[in-house]
Amino acid sequence: MRKNLMEYNDGEEMEILVMIKESKMRTSKNGKPYLILNFSDASGTIRGNYWDATKEDAQRYASGTVVELNGKREEYQDHPQIKIFSMRVVGENEGYDFSQFVKSAPIKRENLEETINKRVFEILNPTWNRIVRYLLKKWNQEFFTFPAGKSNHHAVRGGLAFHTVTMLKDAEGITNTYPQVDRSLLYAGCILHDMGKVLELSGPVATKYTTEGNLIGHLVLIDEQIILAAKELQLDPEAEDVVLLRHMVLSHHGLPEYGAARRPALLEAELLHMIDDMDATIYAITRALQYTKPGYFTDIIPSQDNRRFYRPKQDEAIDNSQKLE
Amino acid sequence: MRKNLMEYNDGEEMEILVMIKESKMRTSKNGKPYLILNFSDASGTIRGNYWDATKEDAQRYASGTVVELNGKREEYQDHPQIKIFSMRVVGENEGYDFSQFVKSAPIKRENLEETINKRVFEILNPTWNRIVRYLLKKWNQEFFTFPAGKSNHHAVRGGLAFHTVTMLKDAEGITNTYPQVDRSLLYAGCILHDMGKVLELSGPVATKYTTEGNLIGHLVLIDEQIILAAKELQLDPEAEDVVLLRHMVLSHHGLPEYGAARRPALLEAELLHMIDDMDATIYAITRALQYTKPGYFTDIIPSQDNRRFYRPKQDEAIDNSQKLE
Amino acid sequence: MRKNLMEYNDGEEMEILVMIKESKMRTSKNGKPYLILNFSDASGTIRGNYWDATKEDAQRYASGTVVELNGKREEYQDHPQIKIFSMRVVGENEGYDFSQFVKSAPIKRENLEETINKRVFEILNPTWNRIVRYLLKKWNQEFFTFPAGKSNHHAVRGGLAFHTVTMLKDAEGITNTYPQVDRSLLYAGCILHDMGKVLELSGPVATKYTTEGNLIGHLVLIDEQIILAAKELQLDPEAEDVVLLRHMVLSHHGLPEYGAARRPALLEAELLHMIDDMDATIYAITRALQYTKPGYFTDIIPSQDNRRFYRPKQDEAIDNSQKLE
Amino acid sequence: MRKNLMEYNDGEEMEILVMIKESKMRTSKNGKPYLILNFSDASGTIRGNYWDATKEDAQRYASGTVVELNGKREEYQDHPQIKIFSMRVVGENEGYDFSQFVKSAPIKRENLEETINKRVFEILNPTWNRIVRYLLKKWNQEFFTFPAGKSNHHAVRGGLAFHTVTMLKDAEGITNTYPQVDRSLLYAGCILHDMGKVLELSGPVATKYTTEGNLIGHLVLIDEQIILAAKELQLDPEAEDVVLLRHMVLSHHGLPEYGAARRPALLEAELLHMIDDMDATIYAITRALQYTKPGYFTDIIPSQDNRRFYRPKQDEAIDNSQKLE
Amino acid sequence: MRKNLMEYNDGEEMEILVMIKESKMRTSKNGKPYLILNFSDASGTIRGNYWDATKEDAQRYASGTVVELNGKREEYQDHPQIKIFSMRVVGENEGYDFSQFVKSAPIKRENLEETINKRVFEILNPTWNRIVRYLLKKWNQEFFTFPAGKSNHHAVRGGLAFHTVTMLKDAEGITNTYPQVDRSLLYAGCILHDMGKVLELSGPVATKYTTEGNLIGHLVLIDEQIILAAKELQLDPEAEDVVLLRHMVLSHHGLPEYGAARRPALLEAELLHMIDDMDATIYAITRALQYTKPGYFTDIIPSQDNRRFYRPKQDEAIDNSQKLE
Amino acid sequence: MRKNLMEYNDGEEMEILVMIKESKMRTSKNGKPYLILNFSDASGTIRGNYWDATKEDAQRYASGTVVELNGKREEYQDHPQIKIFSMRVVGENEGYDFSQFVKSAPIKRENLEETINKRVFEILNPTWNRIVRYLLKKWNQEFFTFPAGKSNHHAVRGGLAFHTVTMLKDAEGITNTYPQVDRSLLYAGCILHDMGKVLELSGPVATKYTTEGNLIGHLVLIDEQIILAAKELQLDPEAEDVVLLRHMVLSHHGLPEYGAARRPALLEAELLHMIDDMDATIYAITRALQYTKPGYFTDIIPSQDNRRFYRPKQDEAIDNSQKLE
Repeated sequence: MRKNLMEYNDGEEMEILVMIKESKMRTSKNGKPYLILNFSDASGTIRGNYWDATKEDAQRYASGTVVELNGKREEYQDHPQIKIFSMRVVGENEGYDFSQFVKSAPIKRENLEETINKRVFEILNPTWNRIVRYLLKKWNQEFFTFPAGKSNHHAVRGGLAFHTVTMLKDAEGITNTYPQVDRSLLYAGCILHDMGKVLELSGPVATKYTTEGNLIGHLVLIDEQIILAAKELQLDPEAEDVVLLRHMVLSHHGLPEYGAARRPALLEAELLHMIDDMDATIYAITRALQYTKPGYFTDIIPSQDNRRFYRPKQDEAIDNSQKLE
Repeated sequence: MRKNLMEYNDGEEMEILVMIKESKMRTSKNGKPYLILNFSDASGTIRGNYWDATKEDAQRYASGTVVELNGKREEYQDHPQIKIFSMRVVGENEGYDFSQFVKSAPIKRENLEETINKRVFEILNPTWNRIVRYLLKKWNQEFFTFPAGKSNHHAVRGGLAFHTVTMLKDAEGITNTYPQVDRSLLYAGCILHDMGKVLELSGPVATKYTTEGNLIGHLVLIDEQIILAAKELQLDPEAEDVVLLRHMVLSHHGLPEYGAARRPALLEAELLHMIDDMDATIYAITRALQYTKPGYFTDIIPSQDNRRFYRPKQDEAIDNSQKLE
Repeated sequence: MRKNLMEYNDGEEMEILVMIKESKMRTSKNGKPYLILNFSDASGTIRGNYWDATKEDAQRYASGTVVELNGKREEYQDHPQIKIFSMRVVGENEGYDFSQFVKSAPIKRENLEETINKRVFEILNPTWNRIVRYLLKKWNQEFFTFPAGKSNHHAVRGGLAFHTVTMLKDAEGITNTYPQVDRSLLYAGCILHDMGKVLELSGPVATKYTTEGNLIGHLVLIDEQIILAAKELQLDPEAEDVVLLRHMVLSHHGLPEYGAARRPALLEAELLHMIDDMDATIYAITRALQYTKPGYFTDIIPSQDNRRFYRPKQDEAIDNSQKLE
Repeated sequence: MRKNLMEYNDGEEMEILVMIKESKMRTSKNGKPYLILNFSDASGTIRGNYWDATKEDAQRYASGTVVELNGKREEYQDHPQIKIFSMRVVGENEGYDFSQFVKSAPIKRENLEETINKRVFEILNPTWNRIVRYLLKKWNQEFFTFPAGKSNHHAVRGGLAFHTVTMLKDAEGITNTYPQVDRSLLYAGCILHDMGKVLELSGPVATKYTTEGNLIGHLVLIDEQIILAAKELQLDPEAEDVVLLRHMVLSHHGLPEYGAARRPALLEAELLHMIDDMDATIYAITRALQYTKPGYFTDIIPSQDNRRFYRPKQDEAIDNSQKLE
Repeated sequence: MRKNLMEYNDGEEMEILVMIKESKMRTSKNGKPYLILNFSDASGTIRGNYWDATKEDAQRYASGTVVELNGKREEYQDHPQIKIFSMRVVGENEGYDFSQFVKSAPIKRENLEETINKRVFEILNPTWNRIVRYLLKKWNQEFFTFPAGKSNHHAVRGGLAFHTVTMLKDAEGITNTYPQVDRSLLYAGCILHDMGKVLELSGPVATKYTTEGNLIGHLVLIDEQIILAAKELQLDPEAEDVVLLRHMVLSHHGLPEYGAARRPALLEAELLHMIDDMDATIYAITRALQYTKPGYFTDIIPSQDNRRFYRPKQDEAIDNSQKLE
Repeated sequence: MRKNLMEYNDGEEMEILVMIKESKMRTSKNGKPYLILNFSDASGTIRGNYWDATKEDAQRYASGTVVELNGKREEYQDHPQIKIFSMRVVGENEGYDFSQFVKSAPIKRENLEETINKRVFEILNPTWNRIVRYLLKKWNQEFFTFPAGKSNHHAVRGGLAFHTVTMLKDAEGITNTYPQVDRSLLYAGCILHDMGKVLELSGPVATKYTTEGNLIGHLVLIDEQIILAAKELQLDPEAEDVVLLRHMVLSHHGLPEYGAARRPALLEAELLHMIDDMDATIYAITRALQYTKPGYFTDIIPSQDNRRFYRPKQDEAIDNSQKLE
C-alpha cells in the first residue's frame, strides 16, 4: 500500500486505499446497471467500472467513500482505467485522513502562509492592513486548505492560497514597472479577492457550491465579511479606504457578465482583474499542455473559449509545470 | 408670485422665485460668453440664456441657487424659454424651503407611507418583517423624499416611494393571479429593492451620484444595510430567509449587464425584476407620450432602446397621466 | 382500467389503455434494435423500452397509436419507467376519444370561455370588439382545445385559452394601477395575440408545426386573419384602429430576435409583450419547481436562459401549482 | 432658367426655379434666428442660409415649397452653397410639376417597365404569375415613381423600380450558374419584395414614413397585398405556392434584427435576401466613391457599418456610375 | 467489383475495393470494443460496424487503409449501413490509385483549368496577371486536386478549383450588371482567394489541417505567397496594385470574427466576400436539399446558423444538383 | 523664447516658436470664417482661435507649419487657450528640427535601445534572435522615433520603443513567476509585435495612417517583414520556429474583432496579448488620472469602454506618472 494510485503501470495489479471521488449509476443497453467510479488519492484520479451493480452497491460506494481497492490498471481507448477485482469500504475509525486522498497545491502550506504574511507587512494603509489580518485570522484554516474552484483553475487542496501567492508575485513585478500603482491596495485586493470562496464552496473534499454560494456569490460574500470586520474593528464603514477595498473585491471579475458587481473604476481594481485573469489562464493552458505531446494541439479548453493550444515540437522544458496538480 | 413657473403663457411677463437647477457656461461664436440656465419650481423647468456673462456671473448664478427672476416667456423653436430682464440672488435667510422648487410625486407622502405600512403587515415571515420595518424606520426621511433616479424614471421628489407603491400594487395583482408566489417575500423585495438609493444618490435636490454610489452601487449598498440590520436585530445572518432576502435585492436588475450582482434564482426574484422593469417602462413611455400630440410619435426614448412610441389619433383620455411629474 | 397511468406505484402491475405519445427506434450496442415509447394519458407521461423490436413493431407502435398496455411500473435511475409485458393496438372503432389521453389545462373549457366572453364586453372600441368576436367564433373549437406550445409553456389541451385567461387577469390588475393604459386595446391584444397558433400548430394531440407555421409563423398568420376579418366585416382596413390592432399582434414577441415582426411602438403593445413574457415565465419556473424538493435547485430550464431556480427549504405551500399540468 | 441647379459654377449668379426640399430654423449665438434651406431640382441639392428669418418666413419657406431663387453659388468649407439674394414663392397655378424638382433613376420608366414585364413572362407558375401581374397593375403608378428608401439606397424618383431591375439582372446570372434554383420563384420575389414601400412611404417628393409604414412595415404590408390579391383572384390562400411566395417577401431582410418576420427557409428566399443586400451595398459604396478623389478613402458610410472605402489611385473609369443619382 | 459502393441496393451482397475514410474505436456497454468504419469510394460513403475488435484490428483498419470488403448493404434507422462479413487489407503494390476512393467535383479538371485560364486573359492589369499566373503554375497540381474544405463546402477532390470556377461565373454576371466594378481585380481575387488552402490543408485524401494552417491560416498564407511571388517577379511590393491584391485576399472572409485579417475596404473586396459567401451557401443548402424529400425540411445545417430549409412539394427539378458530390 | 509653451501662466504674454499641430476652418454663425489652431511644442498642446480668417490664411497656417506666435494665455471654460496677437510662418531654412515641437517618451532613446539590446541577448533560439536583430537594424531609425499610436496609447515620439520596453519588463517578471513560459519566444514577440507600425503610420510628426496601414494593417505588415527577413537570412520559412514567431505577431491583438488575424494558440502568444493589453490600459488610465483632481472621476476614457476611473482623495503620490507624456 506504499505506492500511490498514479504510480502503477499498465497491467500491474494493486491493493490500495483510495477515495471514491465520484460515483454515477448507468445502465448498459442490454439492461444491466453498473457504476462509473472515479478513484483518487493524492497522486491523481483514475476511472473504473463496477459491473452488475445493485441499488445497494450504489449506496455503499457513494461519492466520498474510502475503499480498499483490489484491481489492475489497464489501457482503454488511450486512457488508463482500473479493472476492479473487489472493493471493501473502510470506516473512518480505521485511521485515515480524508486529505490524503486529495491532490494538493505544489507549494506547502507553511511556505504559502509565510509568503502571504510577508506581503501583509507591505500593506501600509492601516485600515486595509487591519481588515486583511482580521480576515486571514478568522478564516485561516479554510483559506489555506480550500481549492480556488470546483473543477476549473486551481482545483486542488490549498489551491486558493496557491493562486493568491502567484498573483502576489505578479503584483510585485507590476508595481515595480509602474510606480504609480498603489501597492498596498493591490496586495490587499489580491489577498481578499477570492476569500469569499471559503463560504461559496463546501470544502477541499468533494467540493460543491453552498446555497449561499449559489444565491449570493463569493464577491458579495467577501464584501459582507469586510463590512462585519470593519464593524468589529470599529472602523468607519463610510471611510473612503473601506469603500475602495470593497470596490476592489466587488469588481475583480472585470465584466458583469463574468460576475463583477461593478466594473473596475480604480487603476488597481483593473489590475487586480487582469492579474487574476492572467494567473487562471496560465494555469489552465499549462495543465492542458501537460497532457499533450510536442507537435500536437491540446483538447478544447472550455475556460479559454474552447480554444486549443499548440505544444511546439521543440518543447522539452515543460517538466517544471508537472507540479501544478 | 402666486403663479407657478409653468403657468405663464407665451409673451407673458413674470416676477417669480425660482431655483437655478442647472447652470452651464458657453461662448457664442462671436466670442461672447453666456450662461444657459434651467429655472425650476414645483411646476417644472424652463430654460433661459443669460447673455454677456462674466466669470463672476457664472459663480453667482451656479446650480442650486435661488433667484428672484424678472423676465418674459417666449416661444423659441417649438420650445418655451425665458427672456431674462433681471435676476437677484435670494439668500436662505429670506425664508424658503428648497423643496418648493422641486417637482414632487403625484401622491402625497402620507398616502405613500400609509400604503407601504399596510403592506408591511402582510409580510408574514418575521425575519423579513423585522428587517423591513427596521430599515424603513432607519431611512424614513430619505426614503420618502428621494427620487428613484437622477434623470431617468421617477426623477421627482418622493419618486422612490412612489415607484415602490405602484410596484406593490402590481405585486398584489400578480399574487392574486398566481397563488404559488410567496407574497411576503415579493412585498419585502419591492420595499427594499431600491432603498440603497438613499446612499447612492445625494438627495432630492440637484441629485448626483455619491462616491459610494459610483463604486459600490445601490444593490450592494442595500445588501450591506440588510447585513447590518440582521446583526443589530440579532438575527442569524446565515439563516435561509436572510439569504433569500439578500438574493432578492442583489438580483433585481435581472441581468448582470444591467447591474444585477446575481441573476434571479427564485420565482419571486424573477418577478421582482419584471415588476420593476414594467413600472419603470410605463413611467418612461407615459411621460414621453404626455409631450406628444395625438397622431405623432414621441421623441426617441433612450431608456427604451431609443424607440419612439406612437400616440394614437383617437387618444384623448391620457390626462390622468399628467400627474406623473 | 379505472386507475390513471400516474397513479400506479413502484412495482405495481397495470393493464391500462394509453396512447403512445412518441415512438423512437434505437439500437443497443450489441446490435439489437428496440423502441423507446412514451406512454401517456390525461394524468401524465411515462417511458418504457420495447426490446428486440422489428421494423413491423416500429410501424405498429407509431406515435399517436392507442394501446392496451400490460406492464409494471419500475424505478430506474431516479425516474419511473414501465417494464412492458405485452401490448395490443386498440382500434378507433373500439370507442375512445383521443382527448382522454392528453393532459388538460387546470381550468374547464366552460370557465375559460366565460371569462374571455366577459372581457370581450369590456372592449369598447367597436372595430376591435367586432374583429375579436368574429375570430373567436371562427376558430372557437381550435382556440379552446389547442395547446399554447409544442413542448414549452402551456403545452396542454386547452393551454392556449388558459394562457389567454391568466394574461387577461394580469391585464386587469395593470390597467387598474395605471389608468393611462387603454384597456380595450390591451384586452383585444391578449385575446388575439396567440390565436395564430390554431394555424401554426397541428392540433391538441401529437402536436407538430404545420408548414405554414414554419414558413409564416403565428404572428403573421393572425395578422392575415385580422385582414380577412376586416374585409368580411366591411371595415376599412386602412383605419387607424385596425392598424393599431395589427401592430399589437405583430409586435407581441418584443424583440425581432424572438420573432416580433415589429418592435412594440404603443404603450399597450409593450405591455402585451411584458404580460405574455411574465405569464410564460411563471408557468415554466413553477412547473420546474414542482419537480424539485425544498432545499434544492431545479434542473436547467432551457426557456429561462438555462438558469436553475431554487426551491426554499421553508417552502410547503406550492401544492396549488400542482394543477398546472 | 434653362440651366440646372448643379450646373452653375463657383461665383456664378442664378435666377432659377427650385424646390425647398428641407427647411429648418436655427438661431445664431448672437440671438438671431435664420433658416437652413436645402434647394433641389432634378440635378441635385445645394444648401443656403436665409438670415434674420421671422416666424412668417419659416412658414412661407416650408419644406416642399417651390420658389424662384435669385442668388449666387459660393464655395464654403469645401462644399458649395447658395448666397441668397431674394426668393419668391411660386404657386402651383403657375405651371410646374413637382417631379421636375426631384432627381430620377438613371433608367427611363418605359425601359424599367419593359424589362420587368419581360421577366414576368418567365414566371411559369400560374399562381405567382397572376399575383405578380395583379399587383403590378394595382400599384403601377406608385411602383414606377417611388424611391426605394427615404434617404439610404436608391432614394431617387423611380428608385424602387430601378432597384428591382438590377436585382432581376443579378437573379438571371445566378440562375444561369446554378440551375437548381427555381427561377420563377426568384423573379416573383424580386418584383414583389419591396413593393410594400408604396404603402410604407409617402411618395416620391419629400418622402416620409406613413403611420402604417412605422407600425406594420413594408414586409407585412406586401404580405397583406398578396393575401387580398389571392382572395380577389379566387386563389386558395392555403395552397403551398401562395405560402412560398409569402415566405419570400416576409423573410427577405434575412435576419430578424434587420426586419425579417422569418429567417429564409427556402434556397430562393436566401438568394433573394443576398441579391437585395448586394445591390444595395453596391449602390451605397458606388455613390460614396463618386464623391471621393482617387487615392483617398470615402467618408464613413453608415449603412456599411461605418466603414470607409478606398478609391484606388489608378481608378479613372468610374464615370459610368455618375448616372446613379 | 465493377459496381460502385453507392450503387448496391438494400439487402444486396458486395465484394468491393474501398478505402476506410475514418476509423474510430468504441466500446459497447457490455464491455466489448468495436470499430466504427466509414467506407468510401468515388461514389460516396457508408458506415459499417466491426464487432469484437482487438487493438490489432484497430491498427490494421486505420483511416486511409484500402480494403477488399465482403458484406451486405442494410437499412438501419433510415440510413444505409454495411454488415461486414470479412475484410482484407490491400497493399499499395496491388495497383490502385488513392484518388479512386475519393469523390470528385462534378466538372473535370481539364474543363476547370480551361475556364480559369480563359479568365486569366481578362485580367488586364499586368501586375495582377503575372502574380496570378505565377501562383497558378507554382501550385498547379495542388490547386486542381485539393478540396475547398475539410468537411464543409466543396469537400471533394477538385473542390477548390470547382468553387473558384462557379465564383468566376458569378463575378462575370455581376460585372456585366455593374460596369463600375473592376473586373480584373475581382477575377484575380476570385482565383487567389482560397489558394492558401493548398498550404492550410494536407491534401485531397483524408484531409486535415496542417500546423501552418492552424497557426497562420489560409488568408495570410496566400498573402505570403503573393509577397514571395512579387519578390521573385521583381515587382515593387510597395506598389499600389500589389497592396490592393493583398487586401482582396486578406479581407475576403468579410468579418474578423469569420477570419478576415481586415474588413473589406474596396468595392471589389466587398463583392469578393459576397460572392464567396453566396457560392458556399448555395452549395450547402443544395446538398442538404438533395437528401430531403419534397414537402419536408432538411436536417439542421450547421454552416447556416443551424437553420432548416424546406423542399417544396412541387419540387421535381432538383436532379441536376445530384452532381454536387 | 526659452520658456516652453506649457510653462506660461494664465494672463501671461508670450513670443514663442511652435508648430501648428492641427488646423481646422470653421464659420461662426454670424457668417465669419475662423481657424481653430492647435499649437504644440515638446511640452504639450494648447488651442487658439484665429478670427476672420481668409482662404489664404487657411493655406498659410496649415497643419505641420511652424510659426512664431505672439499671444497671451487665457483661461476659457476651465481649459487654457491662446489669444493670438500675431503669427509669422518660419521657414525650414531658419534652423529648427521638427522633433523639437513634438512631445517625447519619458525615457531617452539611448536607454531604450540599451534595454532592448540587453533582452535580445536572452533570446536563445538562433532563428528568432537573427530575425529580431535583422529587423531592429533594418528599421532602427523608425522604431526608436515613431509613436505607438496616432492618438491613443503611447502617442509620443519614441512611444513605440517605450511601449516595447515596459512590456519587456512585464515579460521578465512573468517568466520569473511561471518558469514554463518560453522566455525567448515571449521576448522576441514583445520586440516585434508592434514594429509593423513603422509601415502603418506616417512618422512621429503629424502622424497619419498610410494606405498600406489602412488596407493591410500592422500585424500582417510585420508578418511580411519576417517572411522577407527569413528569405534574406536564408532561413527555411517552413521551419516551425519561423511559424511560431509569425503566429505571435499575427495573434497579438487577441480577438479578431480587435484585429488579430488568428486567436492566440500558444501560451506565449496569449501572454503577449495580455501584456500588450495591460501596458496600454495602464498608460491610458494613468494619463486620464493625471488630469483629474483627487476625489473626482476622470472624463470618459474611450479606449476603456467609456469607463470613468476614480482618483482617491488620499492619492498624492501619482507625480511620477507625470513623465508619461
